[in-house]
Formats: sequence, structure tokens, C-alpha cells
Amino acid sequence: MTFDTQHVRAVIERAKSEERTMLTPDEALAVANAYQIPVPAQQIANSAEEAASIVESRERPQVFKVISNDIVHKTDAGAVVTGVVGADAARDAYDGVVSNAKSSNPDASIEGVLVQEQAEAGLEVIVGGTTDPVFGKLVAFGLGGIMVEVLQDVTFRLAPATTEDAREMLDEISGSEMLDGVRGMPAVDRGGIARLTASVSQLIADVPQISEIDLNPVIATADGVCAVDVRILLDFEEPVQRPRPSQEEILAAMSRIMRPSAVAVIGASAEEGKIGNSVMKNLIDGGYQGHLYPVHPRAEEILGKKCYASVLDIPTEVDIAIFCIPARFVASVIAECGEKNIAGAILIPSGFAEIGEHELQNEVVEAARKHNVRLMGPNIYGFYYTHHDLCATFCTPYTERGPVALSSQSGGVGMAIIGFSRSAKMGVSAIVGLGNKADIDEDDLLTFFEEDPNTQVVAMHVEDLKDGRAFAEVASRVSKKKPVVVLKAGRTQQGARAASSHTGALAGNDRVYDAVLRQSGVIRVHSLNDMLEYARGLAVLPDPKGENVLILTGAGGSGVLLSDACVDHGLKLMGMPEDLDAAFREFIPPFGAAGNPVDITGGEPPSTYSATIDLALHDERIHALILGYWHTIITPPMVFAELLADAVERAREEGIDKPVACSLVGDVEVEEACEFLNDHQVLAYPYTAEKPVAVLGAKYQWSHQARMLDSPIG
Amino acid sequence: MTFDTQHVRAVIERAKSEERTMLTPDEALAVANAYQIPVPAQQIANSAEEAASIVESRERPQVFKVISNDIVHKTDAGAVVTGVVGADAARDAYDGVVSNAKSSNPDASIEGVLVQEQAEAGLEVIVGGTTDPVFGKLVAFGLGGIMVEVLQDVTFRLAPATTEDAREMLDEISGSEMLDGVRGMPAVDRGGIARLTASVSQLIADVPQISEIDLNPVIATADGVCAVDVRILLDFEEPVQRPRPSQEEILAAMSRIMRPSAVAVIGASAEEGKIGNSVMKNLIDGGYQGHLYPVHPRAEEILGKKCYASVLDIPTEVDIAIFCIPARFVASVIAECGEKNIAGAILIPSGFAEIGEHELQNEVVEAARKHNVRLMGPNIYGFYYTHHDLCATFCTPYTERGPVALSSQSGGVGMAIIGFSRSAKMGVSAIVGLGNKADIDEDDLLTFFEEDPNTQVVAMHVEDLKDGRAFAEVASRVSKKKPVVVLKAGRTQQGARAASSHTGALAGNDRVYDAVLRQSGVIRVHSLNDMLEYARGLAVLPDPKGENVLILTGAGGSGVLLSDACVDHGLKLMGMPEDLDAAFREFIPPFGAAGNPVDITGGEPPSTYSATIDLALHDERIHALILGYWHTIITPPMVFAELLADAVERAREEGIDKPVACSLVGDVEVEEACEFLNDHQVLAYPYTAEKPVAVLGAKYQWSHQARMLDSPIG
Repeated sequence: MTFDTQHVRAVIERAKSEERTMLTPDEALAVANAYQIPVPAQQIANSAEEAASIVESRERPQVFKVISNDIVHKTDAGAVVTGVVGADAARDAYDGVVSNAKSSNPDASIEGVLVQEQAEAGLEVIVGGTTDPVFGKLVAFGLGGIMVEVLQDVTFRLAPATTEDAREMLDEISGSEMLDGVRGMPAVDRGGIARLTASVSQLIADVPQISEIDLNPVIATADGVCAVDVRILLDFEEPVQRPRPSQEEILAAMSRIMRPSAVAVIGASAEEGKIGNSVMKNLIDGGYQGHLYPVHPRAEEILGKKCYASVLDIPTEVDIAIFCIPARFVASVIAECGEKNIAGAILIPSGFAEIGEHELQNEVVEAARKHNVRLMGPNIYGFYYTHHDLCATFCTPYTERGPVALSSQSGGVGMAIIGFSRSAKMGVSAIVGLGNKADIDEDDLLTFFEEDPNTQVVAMHVEDLKDGRAFAEVASRVSKKKPVVVLKAGRTQQGARAASSHTGALAGNDRVYDAVLRQSGVIRVHSLNDMLEYARGLAVLPDPKGENVLILTGAGGSGVLLSDACVDHGLKLMGMPEDLDAAFREFIPPFGAAGNPVDITGGEPPSTYSATIDLALHDERIHALILGYWHTIITPPMVFAELLADAVERAREEGIDKPVACSLVGDVEVEEACEFLNDHQVLAYPYTAEKPVAVLGAKYQWSHQARMLDSPIG
Repeated sequence: MTFDTQHVRAVIERAKSEERTMLTPDEALAVANAYQIPVPAQQIANSAEEAASIVESRERPQVFKVISNDIVHKTDAGAVVTGVVGADAARDAYDGVVSNAKSSNPDASIEGVLVQEQAEAGLEVIVGGTTDPVFGKLVAFGLGGIMVEVLQDVTFRLAPATTEDAREMLDEISGSEMLDGVRGMPAVDRGGIARLTASVSQLIADVPQISEIDLNPVIATADGVCAVDVRILLDFEEPVQRPRPSQEEILAAMSRIMRPSAVAVIGASAEEGKIGNSVMKNLIDGGYQGHLYPVHPRAEEILGKKCYASVLDIPTEVDIAIFCIPARFVASVIAECGEKNIAGAILIPSGFAEIGEHELQNEVVEAARKHNVRLMGPNIYGFYYTHHDLCATFCTPYTERGPVALSSQSGGVGMAIIGFSRSAKMGVSAIVGLGNKADIDEDDLLTFFEEDPNTQVVAMHVEDLKDGRAFAEVASRVSKKKPVVVLKAGRTQQGARAASSHTGALAGNDRVYDAVLRQSGVIRVHSLNDMLEYARGLAVLPDPKGENVLILTGAGGSGVLLSDACVDHGLKLMGMPEDLDAAFREFIPPFGAAGNPVDITGGEPPSTYSATIDLALHDERIHALILGYWHTIITPPMVFAELLADAVERAREEGIDKPVACSLVGDVEVEEACEFLNDHQVLAYPYTAEKPVAVLGAKYQWSHQARMLDSPIG
């Protein structure tokens, strides 16, 4: 579609010159026409006579609506009349709405009466655009009337959105079914709504001065759409542009930061208990193999390493400088780092924006920009990159290498990551503290992890995004290659935002986060424990090759709970082909249940577990396996664990690697069995049916959005 | 309100005599009148002339509706016309609807045209009654039209429901706000809807032959309600009555079963690996102090206990017989148990209904009824009652005494209960396997636990309820005294039920379970792990004295996650009084945040934790405390755990016992700290913010429903 952006700009310029932040109905109409937004025939009448002549010239009934910025709820005020036919009725209607408007608000300025062709009966929807402080321009779609007002049934996309994006939005709302016609109404023109939504998104993206658009209602019928009311708000303030290096620059700097050849510790200390001492020790104890340079004004040597008075004195190139000095000294050292061509300053010290010292933080940021040094932090525990034996932190070393990269904005969550990882023996590539995010943030990290061969899963704790749009852009790309799990904290603190449009008011922070994270292919979790478990589990589970999930259980009761969890997490229990059903029945007692779940019953020996697990692993129609083990004397927990680990191992050797998720119920021995299985890269949990299925569900969610599997589920 | 039940019965009798299962509109009208269900003025016309004369006699516009059981969607068929005024229009309308009806279905039998006064504009709601296979007579309320059809926004209560119950139903639906008026509509008459709902519930309860009622739509306005369409379906089949002993009989039998003075083991065995051997050993190893009588046809002595050939040979009274013999021998021994006046038979053997042997099970049930023996099982692991040192099971002994009683329908879940309890050191009063529930079921157990001084919390895994109404009745009573947690498995298997009314079709099994469990005051959980954690936590947390929850944290990040969780679980973060805010500020650094959460910041020594915790425990305005600990060198995990346990202990000694729930984030040492705290009766979890808040949320949910606190939340 081609849009007349020039014309819109001219309209906006005129409004600007008249210092208006809202377009008149005439102007809004012109903008709608320029962006092929269908609107009813309409004209403004300034007298009862004028109204009468307009009505006489039209065939369909007309709607009269007072034009006034001072009356918000026009219907309530009696300032709207529908179904006007004929000149007499037109005169009455004109006088009626104007007098009602005046009595509802005697001070209201009335700029005429809009005479508009009455839309055919149809489904009311709402399409709008808004400007979000985090994500910028957004487009919204929802069902109109009570659905949006009472149930807030609305969804968002970053603008501009494609028509395909818009079609997905139509499926996302709860009342989506209404678009297909209910109670004898015909299905509405989905394509028309999608095109309209895409046009609105293009409009708000093309013309940044448009802050909010409300098409409310849009009447959708089988034949098309019509925006009955168009409201456009303006904001001429220039948005603050956040400087953003190029993709290549980010990658170059981040690679030096995460895998440095030489590290300087500013404020290194020999004194036990000092942060500069802990950081030195962790680097050494963690086994860092690169150059390590303590920097201290007077010391000769710290922990056996030669000391330098300044980074400028260091003989080799240096990639990162870890700051262990008080906040007020940071800025001046940053300048030296720049001179030394250091890529990144790791700012452990607190005492910046988090305690209100914004100016001090700005000073550091400016110094860093000026000298081309990237900043991590301030107010962080540091970071780990295990595949380079780098523990650049004052916490304890973490050296269990693996494919999971994690970041946290808060130190508390960082400590939970370290503790959980150690306890669960989670293989980690990186753990990064982002703290105040004065510079480096999630999109920088994602850009690095995308290319990092040691990272296969990314999990991030986020309190706020400094640049939501940059994050969404990078996350959309990265999540197609590697699962990205996000715990967005503060989600229930719905931002109290001043908004003068419906769309704006509906864009409470969390709803927008939810929509944009989904659009970005991110797996959003709602609890810390889920973030940690998903991170661990996603790395363990191989990619499923298809939708078909089979539950195999020794306890009927577990089978029911596992089935419940499958439905909760959008997993598809495969329908059981007759031959496969018969094949399972070969191994299980006559009163056991084939079908899905396959219930091998509780009294069976290890051989029954082995035979049925082998069958499930080898049948190509089964794409993922959920196991429900039940503790019995005949097949004790460790026996089960060993036979399962062995079966999976043998299958892997044959090139078969399916996701296997296990729930073990039984006496405390099942804990040891789970540990054994997890050590053998088989996902297993004791005393829960929900958790293994939830993690498998996350894997499927990722597989679908990364388009590895054809169709989305559930 | 007084209802003319006699008249309704007469109407029903006539329909029965004519072998109809649906009332005619005239009959439905008569029933509605008898139960004070407001309906519009209406009359049946059999000719265009008759219709014309009816319309002429009325003032308001009329609706014409063809009467035919053969046309389901009358509006779609054009068999409904609205707004008929005047004799001419009446004749046209009559002919029109009849001819449309005939062309939509030429074979339709048409019994006339209903001429009905058109309702005023108002809000469409739906009120109905249905008969559920588990819960019997139910009443339903929902918003009409698309809200019920697309969003299935409907709720249920057991019938009869009081007007107060019905008022609660109005608040339960998602679109509840619509009742208060949106988009310029006035608020509707909530009282009128509630009274109507109560009347319908009374009607379906009074007249069991009425299987389904649909009042759809009911038009609600500010001034009242009017049921525009009344549809009543009948079912003359006599429902199967489940025999149910009196409350006193249940209690007498269950007390003997759970706390027996003498136990017989039928099929006791000296042979290792046999169930009859495991049961004997567990009874002995568990420390059972009563008489223990092995029963075996030949043995003299088993495990040092004198053997008897039959229970009839045992010299003392016997309370329970634990069956460890094959299924086919059970029935005959039950007869002997009856003769011996044994209260309960614990049927461990499988091989009954669960494998299709319904007849064998019925035989046992009949023998038991005949001989007045209660049955537990069959197909169970047995049961534990720790306060009587009774391990009547083939599993391992469990002897950690405490206030939590648990039951499971499946053996798998039973083993998870035992393993989790042991691992978490959960103090348990009873663990009971219910298996096939041929006789004893959840309501029998609840009746016992209600009076059992050793039980303070009940948690039940339920796959189906044999008698939902009996369960609801007992659970409503018990849950006012002790929290009852229910994990209803199989909840996603929406029963595919044949239903010929809207209300019936909406009553998918799980939606009804959900509504009735809520009505019964039960805390419903959706995962096995939640059931176990809630059971443990509810017993640890004392009852809160009020709504005010305070979060106290060493990590700002934890504070945000804990706040999120509070909103998720309906907890009210108290507004901070100025003096209390100032009192906290005395102890925390200037850049720390008072308010709620109180953020004492991460670098603080133990004394800051102690001082602020003491303050929170001692200020009477704070009713519950959530702690977010962050691992630091200055206040290590065990130091925190000890100071907290000490503070809580001191407060308890002073008579202050508030719920305290802790989230500990940090390195693996926090696990040990959590264990220490839990050992000291302070609820604590590592690596999660969600769990402690969820458990506290469950405690509040219970406190509210048990009316210990004034108003419901969330």
C-alpha cells in the first residue's frame, strides 16, 4: 500500500504552527484518507440548516455528533444522536445535541456538529497507536465496547507491524472467536482489519509527532471495515535518542570484555575482606589464564602479581578494567582506560543512580562515551565467563562450564543464580550483573551471546529495559537461534501513566511488555525459580522433531497429573496409532492401559520399563517422552534411573536424541535417582508432575516460535 | 419467599403422563410464576387474527416467536420478529415468522406463535439450573450473549443457594463490572438478579425431576429483571442414592479405624518380600502399641506375634483388619470381620474395579454393607496415623508426628507424599490411601479429621468424588475450622457431556469443580508440589490477625519479585504509617528505602536485620512479614537464620505469633539456612521469591473464607 506521508506531515505542521496537540476531525479525516483508513462519509455542519442540507443529500441514516474537546463522554452527555433521516429530523437533531452538550458543560467550546453516515451493523473493534516510554511506537488491536472497557481484551505490536503481524494480533485476544461470527452474525473481514491495523502502525511509525491514535469504534462487517471515530493526538517534543553503537562495534567490544586477554583490577588490594582483594582472589582461584594486572597507587605486588600505579603503566594491551574503588574516583580513571584503549570498565562500586547520585553516574557515562569505553554496571557483583575461566566478581568462583548464560539486574537475583546453579550443577557459560545499566544492557549481552559458540540458552532477569525497542530487535533475532528466557520483575506495578486516548490508557506497562516479549520470541517466566529451572532444563532437552508427546507411567495417578500439566503447557498428547498401541501392549499387563498415557502399572519389573522406554525412544512417530516413575520394591528408584540413563545413552549413540522429561514419585531415594539422571543429562524432578512438563512446554514454545516446528500450539 | 411447589409438581406430572421431557412454553410460564420468576406478559396466538388482537390489547411493542421444538436457532431461522406494534404489523409478523420457520425446516411441527411483551433495553444475563453427575443440582449465573458464548463467563453454586450465595456469584464472573453500568448504562438491580438466581436454585432443588433450566436471556435493568425465555427440561429417571451413614456413625467407625486398639493382619506372612510381611514389619517397626494379631490359616507365630487361623479366633475385640490376601478371597473374610464386630477393613489388594473387575468389587461392598464393616480401598498402600504409632501399610514407616493429614487416591501420589514429607521433615498426623474408594472416601476422612485434635491441616489428592454433594457439605463445615487443600487431578479432561441446555453445556466438569470447591472453602491447588508445600506451610504459619503484609528485604531486586508475588496471590501490602516509616529509617542507611517493601540494602550487618525484624514483629499494625534475605559476607546465611529464628522465638514467648515467610537468595549456604529455619518453625525457601508468598497467600485465602478476617481480598 502507498501512503501519502507528505500530506500527513503538512497537516501536522499546521497543527504545530497553531500550537495544537490534537487534530480537528477534518484533519484527522485527511490523515485517515492519506493512509487508506476507511471512514464513513462525513461533513461538519455549523447550523441546523446546514445539517439539514447535508442529510438531504445522503441516502443512509446519519449520526450527529457535537465537536468539542471539552466533552469527553459525548454519548453520556446526549451529544450524539443516531439514525437521523430527513431535513426536519436533521434540524431537531442539530439543536438537540448542541443544547445537550451545553447543559452537560456550559463552558464547553463547540466547534460544530459532525454529520456522519451511520455505519452498517457490524462488530465493534478498536485499533489504535500509542507511544510507549520503553518501546516507542506501538499499534493496538482489541474488540470494542465492553470487551475492551471491562475485560481490557487488547493486544499490542511494535509499529510498524506487517499485515501478517496484525493477523496474529487478531488471534491473540480472548474474544477472537467473535471475529468468526457468533449468534448469527457473519464472520467479519479479518484481512480488512489486519490491513487497517498495519496502516495505523505505519502511520504512527512514519510520523513520530503523532503520539496517539484511536480508531474507536471501527465497525467490521463481512465486507470490510470502517473507522467511525478517528482521534489523533500530537506531541512535538523531540524524543531523547539513546546513542547505540553498530552491531559490529558492540560485538567487537563485548568479545573483548567477555573473553579478555588481559585484565586490570583498579583498586586491587592485599587486604582480606576488601572487594579489590576478593576480585583478585576469584580471578586467580577461578583459573584465569590471561594477563592479570593489579592497579594500586603504592603497592609493589598483590597476591604474587606485579602492581601498577595506573593502567597507563601496564606494558601490554588491556581488555577490561575491573573497578573496585569508591564511586567518586571512577570517572577520572575511565579517562585513563580510554587512553589505554581498554574495551570495558566493570563498575562494581555502588553509590551512583541507585542512591540518587545521578550526576555522578552521568559524569562516568560521559567520560566513557568520550573515551570509547563500554561500562558494565555500576552497582554490580561483576561477571563470570566460565569458558575463559573468568570470575570477575567479588562473589565466590563458579567454574561449572556449560551452555547457559544468565544475567540479572539485581545483585540478590545474581546470588540466587549462583547458588541455584551450584546446587543444581547447572553448566554455565556466563553470569553477568547489569546493575544500573548505565551503558551495557541486555541487548549488548544478547548480541554477544548470539555469536558465542559456548552459549546455547540465555536467561535474563530484567527490572526495566533502557531501550525496549533495541532489546526487541535483538531478541527477535537471537531467539530464532537460541532460547531466550526473561523474568520481567515489577510486572504488577502497572505504571500510572497519563494518557488521553483509550489506546494509551490500555497500554499499562505490563500488558505491553507481555505483547512485545511474545512478539520477540522470548519465553517469559513469572517467577525466579521458573527462570532458573527453565534455563537449566532448556539446555538439557534436545530440540523436539515434532509435536507428538507420549506419557509413559508406572502410576496411573501420575499419568493423570502429567496429562493435566500437558494441557496447561500447550503440549499435544499424540493420538496412539493402532500398531504402536499393540506394540506397547506386548510389554504391559492386560489390565494396564495403552493409549496415551501408557500406564505400565505399578508392579512391573525393570524389564518392562526398559522395553517400553526403548520402544518409545525408537518409534519415530513419538517426538518427546514424559516419564512418570513410581517407586516400588520391584523397580527401585536407582534401578530405574540407571536403566533410563542407559536407554537414553544408547539411543543417543544411534543418533536418536529426543526430549525426555521425568517425574519421580516415591520415598526420599527418588532424590538421589533424580540427581543421577540429571548428571546423565536426563531432566528429572522428584515430588512434582508439573515441573518437568513445564520445562518441556518451554522447549516446545521456543521450537514453535523459532519456526523449527510448523504450527504454534495451544 | 414462598413458592408454589405443589403447582409445579402438578405441571411436571402432566408432562410425565404425556411422556414429555420438555415443558411447553405455557407450562414453563406456569412454573416461573409459581417460583416468582418475573417474565414478560405473553400469550400464544394460533392465527394472524389472534395475534393482531393480542397486540392491540397491549401498550408496549411485542416480540413474535414461533413455538417449535424442531427449530433450535429461531433468530437465525427468521422465526423471531421484534418491535411489533399495531394490528396490521401483527398480522404481517405472524405470517412472516411462520413462513420463515417453515422454509428453514419444512418438517418442523409448529405449535403456534408466542406473542410476548418486548423487554426494555437492559443487560442480558443468563440464569440456569442443571444436574451434575457428581454434585447434583446446581444453579448457574453468567453474563448473556457473547460473554457467555465466547468467553464462557459463568459461575455455579450447589442448589439451593441462598440470596447471599447468589450475590457472591455476581461478583465472581470476569465481567462483573458490567452489572454496575458501563458505557452510560445504569447499574442493574443486583438484588433482583440474586433473588431470581436463588429462586431458580430453589426450584431445581425442590423438584428433582427438573434436570435443566435455562433463563436465557434475562434482561436486567436498574428496576428489576425479566426472564424473556424460559426453557425447562425433565428427567424422570430416579437418581441412584448412595447409602450414607449418619455423622455419628461415620465418626464412631473412623475413630476406631484411625486409632485402633487392636489390629488384625489378614494374610500376615513371615516371608520376606510378601505384602503381608511388610505390613507386619511396618506395624512393629512403626512402634504400634496396641494388640497386633497376624491371621494365617496354618502359621503358629509370625514375627514373634501369635497367629490365628481366623479373626473369629482372636480373644479380644478387634478394630481393623488389614487385608493382604488376593482379591478373590476378600469378600468371604469380610463376613467374618462383620461377625467379629470389626470397624474397618483396610483393603490393600488390587485386582478390583481398577482392572475392570467391578463385580468382584461389588461383592465385597455388599458383604461389607451387610456386615456393617467400613472399607478402605481396595487397591491402596494402606494408611498411617502417626499419633497412634500406626503404619498400616506395605511402604516404609513414617513416624514424624505433626498436624498435617494427607490423603491420595493414587498410590503414586501417596509415595510422593511420603517422600516429600520425609525430605521436608513435615510433621504428619495421617497419610491415607483411598484407591478405588469402594466405601470410605474423602467425606468420611474429613469427618474424622474435623474432630481429630492431632490434625490441623488437611490436604487431599482427588481424582473423582463419588459423592460431590456429601464432600461439599462436609468440606464447607471442616474448612471453617481447619484449612483443606485439594489437588483435583484430571481437571483438564473436560467431560464430554450430553447437554441440551446452555447451562448444561457450560457445566464442563472442571468449571463446576472449581466453583463448588471454592464455595466449600477449599484451597484448590493445581500441582502436586503446591499441594505438598501448602500442606507443610499452612501448618507452620500461624493465623494472621489482619490484612497488613510487610516485606522486609536486604535486596531491592528481591523486594520487587516479592511484591509481584504478593499481587499474584492476593496479599495486601500495607500502606506505611508515617511513624512506622520513621522508625524503620532509624535503622537503615539513608539511601535505603522505607515504605513497603522496606529495603534495608545489601551491605548491612546482622544488627540491622535484627532491629528491623524486631520492629516488624512487635508493631501491631503489621500482621504478616515476608523476608527477602540476600547473602552477603557481612550477614552470612546461617547468621541471618539464627538471628531470625531467635527473634521469632522471643516474640512467641511474648505471645506474638505472626506469619513469617522467607525467601533466601545466595550461594548454596542458603539451603542449610532454610533447613535451620524450617526446623525452627519459620517458613523459608531458597532461590525462589514466589513460593513463600504463595503459601502465605493460601493462609490468607483460608483465613478469609473461614471468616477469621473480615473481607475477602483480591
